[in-house]
Parts: sequence; C-alpha cells; structure tokens
Amino acid sequence: MTATIAGPLKSTEPTGQMLIAGEPVQGSGKPINAFDPATGATLEPAYRYGDSSHVEAACAAAAAAFPIYRATDSEQRAQFLETVAANIEAAKDAIIARATAETGLPTARITGEVGRTTGQLRLFASVLREGSWNSARIDPAQPDRQPAPRPDIRQRAIPLGPVAVFGASNFPLAFSVAGGDTASALAAGCPVVVKGHDAHPGTSELVGRAITDAVAQAGLPKGTFSLLFGDGPDLGIALVTDARIKAVGFTGSRSGGTALVKAAAARPEPIPVYAEMSSINPVFLLDGALSTRGADLGKAFVGSLTMGSGQFCTNPGLVVAADGPGLDDFVTAARDALAGSPATPMLTPNIAGSYADGVTALSKEADLVGRGEAGDSECACRAALFATDAAGFLNSEQLQAEVFGSSSLIVRCKDAAEMRAVAENIEGQLTATVHADESDHPEAAKLLPVLELKAGRILFDGWPTGVEVGHAMVHGGPYPATSDSRSTSVGSRAIERFLRPVAYQDVPTSLLPSPIADGNPDHLWRRIDGQLTAD
Amino acid sequence: MTATIAGPLKSTEPTGQMLIAGEPVQGSGKPINAFDPATGATLEPAYRYGDSSHVEAACAAAAAAFPIYRATDSEQRAQFLETVAANIEAAKDAIIARATAETGLPTARITGEVGRTTGQLRLFASVLREGSWNSARIDPAQPDRQPAPRPDIRQRAIPLGPVAVFGASNFPLAFSVAGGDTASALAAGCPVVVKGHDAHPGTSELVGRAITDAVAQAGLPKGTFSLLFGDGPDLGIALVTDARIKAVGFTGSRSGGTALVKAAAARPEPIPVYAEMSSINPVFLLDGALSTRGADLGKAFVGSLTMGSGQFCTNPGLVVAADGPGLDDFVTAARDALAGSPATPMLTPNIAGSYADGVTALSKEADLVGRGEAGDSECACRAALFATDAAGFLNSEQLQAEVFGSSSLIVRCKDAAEMRAVAENIEGQLTATVHADESDHPEAAKLLPVLELKAGRILFDGWPTGVEVGHAMVHGGPYPATSDSRSTSVGSRAIERFLRPVAYQDVPTSLLPSPIADGNPDHLWRRIDGQLTAD
Repeated sequence: MTATIAGPLKSTEPTGQMLIAGEPVQGSGKPINAFDPATGATLEPAYRYGDSSHVEAACAAAAAAFPIYRATDSEQRAQFLETVAANIEAAKDAIIARATAETGLPTARITGEVGRTTGQLRLFASVLREGSWNSARIDPAQPDRQPAPRPDIRQRAIPLGPVAVFGASNFPLAFSVAGGDTASALAAGCPVVVKGHDAHPGTSELVGRAITDAVAQAGLPKGTFSLLFGDGPDLGIALVTDARIKAVGFTGSRSGGTALVKAAAARPEPIPVYAEMSSINPVFLLDGALSTRGADLGKAFVGSLTMGSGQFCTNPGLVVAADGPGLDDFVTAARDALAGSPATPMLTPNIAGSYADGVTALSKEADLVGRGEAGDSECACRAALFATDAAGFLNSEQLQAEVFGSSSLIVRCKDAAEMRAVAENIEGQLTATVHADESDHPEAAKLLPVLELKAGRILFDGWPTGVEVGHAMVHGGPYPATSDSRSTSVGSRAIERFLRPVAYQDVPTSLLPSPIADGNPDHLWRRIDGQLTAD
Repeated sequence: MTATIAGPLKSTEPTGQMLIAGEPVQGSGKPINAFDPATGATLEPAYRYGDSSHVEAACAAAAAAFPIYRATDSEQRAQFLETVAANIEAAKDAIIARATAETGLPTARITGEVGRTTGQLRLFASVLREGSWNSARIDPAQPDRQPAPRPDIRQRAIPLGPVAVFGASNFPLAFSVAGGDTASALAAGCPVVVKGHDAHPGTSELVGRAITDAVAQAGLPKGTFSLLFGDGPDLGIALVTDARIKAVGFTGSRSGGTALVKAAAARPEPIPVYAEMSSINPVFLLDGALSTRGADLGKAFVGSLTMGSGQFCTNPGLVVAADGPGLDDFVTAARDALAGSPATPMLTPNIAGSYADGVTALSKEADLVGRGEAGDSECACRAALFATDAAGFLNSEQLQAEVFGSSSLIVRCKDAAEMRAVAENIEGQLTATVHADESDHPEAAKLLPVLELKAGRILFDGWPTGVEVGHAMVHGGPYPATSDSRSTSVGSRAIERFLRPVAYQDVPTSLLPSPIADGNPDHLWRRIDGQLTAD
C-alpha cells in the first residue's frame, strides 16, 4: 500500500446510497427521506434501508480486509486517519450545510463538531505514533533460573477484528460515521461497518465517502470501511450477530443499547459491546456555593440545560441541593432564565414526541417549577424544570429515568447527609457535578467517594455538557450509563476497547512482531521485567 | 489500620467450616467429605454447603468493607498481600499435606504450587508499589485556549467493587482461594468472596484462614474476605447475581463458565465475568522440526500430556502435522512413551468419569494410536492418543471438544497449507504451540498471524503446560478459551480486570486523590498531555 495523500473529494452531493467496501450501493427498502426539523422540509435524495444481503457483503469484505489492514504499521494507519480528516475538511462546506439542515442545530455548533471530529482522527494518529497502545512487554529469558529455566515471554496488543459502529442521533459527526468509535477502531487495526443514523443520512453518506476515498488513497483493502442504513431490530441485530463482527460501539438509547448487548451475549461467540446509553448527570449544589452565587448558578444551569435542545448524553437532568435561601435564589433565577428560553428544534419528530411524553410523566410525580417558551413546530423542545423532595425521588423509578431533551428535576434535600443518601441511591452516570465553595470542601470530600462509584467523570464548578477530547477524559461510567464501565468512548484510551493482549513465548527473533522485537525498532515505551523503559 | 505482621497461624487443622467476614461458620447442607483420589480414603472433617443466608452475609460484609478497603493506599495493600503470603508459608506443611491428600497430586507439585501462590501475592505487592496500575493521567488546564478554555482533567483507576472468585479443581492453591483471581482483585482494592471447590475443601479452609488472619493483622474490615462452600447452580449463581458483587473470576469447565456468564448478563446491572473455560491447545509440528527430531518430540509431548494426569487448562489436546516419516517417528515414540506411562489419579471420581466418557467419544470418531497403562482405582487416568485426518477433524464438533485429562488427538494433514486450514478453523485457545527448525521459519511466518487470532499465548519449541507468572504472560484468549479475551488471569495485568477509569475535571487541588495530585506525591509514572513522565 502507499500512504500518499491525494487531493480533495470530487463530488459533495449526497446520492442516497450506502457504501459497501468502496462501492455505492442502493438499499432495497422503501424510500425514506431526511427532514429539516427547523423548517419541516423534506430533504432529498431518498435513502433506502439495506437488508441481510448488504450486511453479508459488508461483513465479508471487512473479514477479508482484516488480515491485511491489521498488518499495516502505526505510521500507515496514522496517515490514513489524517487523510480521512483532510477529506472531511475538504468537503466541510457541504457537510456543514447538510448536517445543519438534517439536525436543526446551529451552524456554529456543527462547525465545531466538524473540528472535534477531525481533531479526534488526528488524536488517534498521534496515539498510534506514540505507540503505548501496543502494551509492549518483555520478560527476558532466565536460562539459569532454578528449579527450571524461565522462557523469553513478550506481549503486545492486537486488534479484535471487524467492528460494528452505530451512529448516534445527537452528534451527526463526532459520534457518528467518522466519530470516536470509528476513529478508535480504525486506529486499533479493526475494519469498521457503520450503521448510519436515520436522522442524518446525507451527512453520514458525505462523511462515509470521505472515509471511503481515504481507504482508496491509502491503498487499503476496500472492506476496511462500509456504511449501511437500516433499522435497529432488523439490520442492526443482523450486524451484531454476524460471526465476523468482533466488537460493537453504540451511542443511543437505553433500550437500543440493551437490545444490542443481549444480542451480542447470546451469540455462539459472545463479543464486547460498548454501549453508551443513559445518564441524568446529577449536579450537587453545596451550601456555600448556593449561598454566595445561587442566582448565578441557576442562570448558568439553564444555559447548560437548554444547549442543543438538551440533546446531550451529559445534559444535567438532576439537581440535588439542600433547602434554604440559596436554593430559593437558584430556583428563581432558573425559572426566570427558562421563561426567556425560546423553544428550539429537536432532531426528529420521534425524539420530540418522546421528550413530550417524558415531561408529561414527570409532571405526574413532581412539581413543575418552570418552563421555557412554547414552540409551534412538530419538533419544538419546550424546556421544563421540576422539583421534588428526596423521599419522592428515591421512591420513584420514573423520576430517575432519563428524559432526553431540556428537562431537569431538582431534588430538595433536608441537609447534606440527605444529599449523600440521594447520591448513594442513584444509578450509574456518565458525569456527576459538584458546585462547591472552599467552605464546602469538607462536605465535598465526603461526597466525592460516593460519586466515584456512580460516575465516569466528576467535575467541579462547571457544567457537564462539554466533553473534552484528550488523554485523561472518561466518557463512560457504571451501568446503565454504559454497558462496560471499564472503558471510555471519548479520548485516547478509547483505542483499548478494540485490542487484546497476546503473549509470545520463545518465538524466534526473526519472527517477532516489531513492537516486541529485539533492539526496540519501533522506539516504544516497553515494560521490561515490569519496568517501563524507552531504550 | 496498622500493617504490623504478626506471628504465624496458631492452628493448622481444618475444622469443616466456612469463613464469613472473619468468623468460622458452619454450613447448613448435608455433610460432604473430601476424598483422597490416590487411596480412596475419605478425609475428615465433613463440610456443609452454605445457603442463601451465607451468600447474603458474605456479600453484605464485602459491601460494607469496600469503601474502607478501597481507601487503603498501595503500600497498605501490598503489605496485606505479603502478610497473606507469609501466613500461607507459616502453614505450609499442613497445607501441603492436606492438598496432597485431597488431590492425589505429587508433593513436589503441590510444594511448587505453594511457591507459585505466594509468588503471585508478592508479585501483586510489587505491582501495587510500582503504581502504573493507577493509570494516572493529567491533561492540564489551558485557560487561554480559543474558542473556549480547556479545563483541568485528570484520570485514575478505581476498583469495581466486591468480586466473586470461583476456585478451580485442578490448582488447589494457585487458581483457588488465594490464587491469581483473589490476589489481583485484592490488589485492585476489591473485597473478595470465594466459592471454594469441593475437591479440596480442607486446603481451601486452611488458605482461607491465612487470608482471614491477614485481614485481622492488617486491621482491615472483616468483610474484605469470605470463603463459602456450595454447589454452582445454587450458591454460585446466588453469589454472581447478588447486586453487591461487581465482577467475577472463574476457572473451570465451559458449561460452568457459560452458566455464570449468562447469569451475570441477565442481572439488572450486568457485570463482567472473567471465565477461563476450555482449550485444546493445538501443537503444530512443522516439517523441519519433525524430520530432525520427530522421535524426541513424540517423547517430550507425552511428558507434557500426562503431567498432573493431564489436568491442566493448557494440556496439549491437539497435534497438527503433515504426513511423512518425521510424523511417523513422532507417533511411534509417543505410542511407546504412552505405553510406559502409569495411570495416575485424577482429582475426583466425577472428573475421572468425564475423562473416560470423553475418551470413549473420541474413539468413535478417531483412530486409537496408543494408550497408557491401565489403573485399578476409581480415579485412575489412563492416557490416550488418537489420530484423524484434517477433513475428519474439521467436520466434527466432538473432535474439537476439550477432554479434560491426558487425552490428545493427532490431525494428520497433507501439507502445510492444510495445517493452516486447520488452524483457521479451530475455536479460540489459551495457547498455540509451534515446533520449528530454522528451515521452517518461512512457513512459521505464515502460520503465526493465523495463530495470533486464535490464542492468548503462542509458544515455540516448548510445551504449553507451564504458565509463567510475570508481566508479559497472557493466560487468556478468544472465546471459548475465556469469556473475555481482553484480559489475562495470570500475571501482573490481571489487576486491570477489576479496575475502571474515573476522570476528575477541575476538582480542587486539596480534594484530588494522591495518584493524580499536584507534585506527584506517589512518585508514579503519569501521562501528562499524553506523554509518559515520572516527574
């Protein structure tokens, strides 16, 4: 293969086709069209769902590509990921226009998401070049050891095999076709078959072509990447249960994620599923912070709550605080800020409908504190804020369920001990937030160990809705936030999800893979007899 | 807590009791006795199975212990593990005598296994002190970043919670009560509830007391460790489905492991199960090696096959080679060596019965090549070697199934290409072995990438039955060798199975856990903005 980077994409118009191993392929289902939730307009062209023959073709091509793709070295895969990023940037105007139309999200947000997506691809290129992902370890032979000689044992990581990725509704780029799951799986050496989300098929196709072109530019096997459309219970399950698929990345609903986890566990060969599913992202307001800046916090909270129509996995759906004048200030400011919040479009009529149902259900078990402005479109999200007490919250499953959108619930507690009791009784979360002044630190120190067991990320004095892409980020957490708390779907450690270790015992020098070869030809950090060394 | 190491254990006689959170507890089931498979003698005292009330008590104590135990630092846990090792050594004579009687294994083997067990405990003490297990990462704040400041994000690993460990039949010490699963879980900061194996309850109790005493000596909460007895479908499933258990370690049969995996997946909160289950450990004999030393290989093979009555997860149950005079030499030498192999006792009458059934099943689908000497006891293992051709092997599920004990099958292939076809079509394995002379290296280079996808460990010019405990070892592999190929149950990386990452965003300096505190007080290797540094 060559790693030459060719010029930009030629065509930037969506064509309504899937992409299977480099070829545009028309689906066989009835035509479906994307929809502009801001205007209600139908978007052309129509797309058609794929069927089992398309799953078969994509998985066969991925399996055929795997031995060749995984044999590429880190530099080759790094350049490939950078070519994907360059191709997305070359098609940026068309992608932004289409994604904005398909999602109703502001252009600035979508522009930022393009940058996040190309940034993720380049992050994984740097992870590949840095090389620690190989987990190279050498326990040298000890021929004179008593009572028996020790053999030479070396370890490195290899990719699991073809990976199925399910694009998310709410991030048409960063958690979709070329999003974090795809970037980390490709970095690991795994071919990827994506099921694109119906909410943004045109964006998916344009990004899919950026990857498909990069596969060709890099001279990689065509089956390294495919993009399918189809419904979850049918095509999605067929993909996850295909014997050639060895791992799954998913971002979406709890019901969808749970179905994939169950299907993967029931296979003759069970496989790992990394499903990021459901989180209400509790925010704990400690007394000192509330008393000095309750009103400011209330206003800032509504900013986080209503951003992107609340369509974030990390949307702050729960506020936990002790009763008092500070909390009253918070509530008043939040109610006022909400009252001035215009309704904004949600991604699809289905999502808007589920949001409205969720708000109705909350209104039966909690007190309405305030609402945003009403909207007149089918997809409008009218923000909502409710309140209850700790007993009411702890006795209700409904009040712990995620309402996807700009809805949140305040749990009024008697005191800090009751706040901790609430923390101890919530389900697993992606994030937990604490607002604390210095006077609150003794209480925060008691709360922190409780939150560690409940969340993948703990943040202070901010809002959970921004998820940095870096080396220390954890976008994960205990069930049901994700199906596998041992991993992150954002940041450089995401590559580890698609790798497994292999040990090589007394393998002849000439046959050793380069990450664990004598003389450290790849210039890696390696663990020699347990000690890290770069020699 | 203190870390003072007190004197040796006072009593070294088994009492017939379980150990729940530091207290000896009599089970409620009918009395069962261990059995000396070498002599047929019944061993006193009787043990009784526990019931759901004992599971409840052990899990409640483990959950109560968890917040306190996980708050210990690495040095405290390292000293605790060393105390366990010291206590086992202090009771070594009694443990060896009892384990030898309960298993029928030679004293030298059991003595070696005690050393392996204490060595594992000390290995994890060194892993704790080295500190990389914390996965400490810091992405420092960038307050001037445009368009938005970057927060300070740090990451470390925390333990999952109480772990259930199932002792294995075949390693009464190294894969049992204080074996690798227990040592790695305790190192990670997880309390452990062990279900001891019925084949060696007295050994389990003595080792359990060594741990229980160490818990007391170290001033740890009593629920840090419990030992139960009971049957798998009843007490085992109750343990795995208890909501307070957060991960499972298991070494045993495919049916037993699969049942635990399914039970764990069906929980309201699914949890990881690390089940090491089934492997036939193929050995590939390449032409050059066979032609220069076929007879030597045949003799050495029988040594590996019959060691410990073949009761190793890594027993060489499959030999793959191309027809020719070298293979004939191998077969003749193996047959002769077998004919002089005395029958040796298996662990239990059940295991010996399953072995005999497996040999009978093989004899219906493959040709008998040779057998070891017959034995006259109920538990005697009479070694068996069969042969078939590649087509016969590939068309039979029966021939791919593990027969636990000294039974193996030679697959006679036409040529190296057919040997590779066999490799491509086997299930996941713990190990794959290649015997190759230098003239075989071109062929070995073609075989190696196939074997990488099938096994957790690849070894050359040796036998798979020795599993080194070190930093590079992988005792794992694709399903059904294990239920989770991303991990190892032997060696220092086993600790990772019981950890998950947590990110800390803008957490005030005074509240940061020490592994990620400013100034690196724990003197760890940490990844700062992605770069490893020990500063």
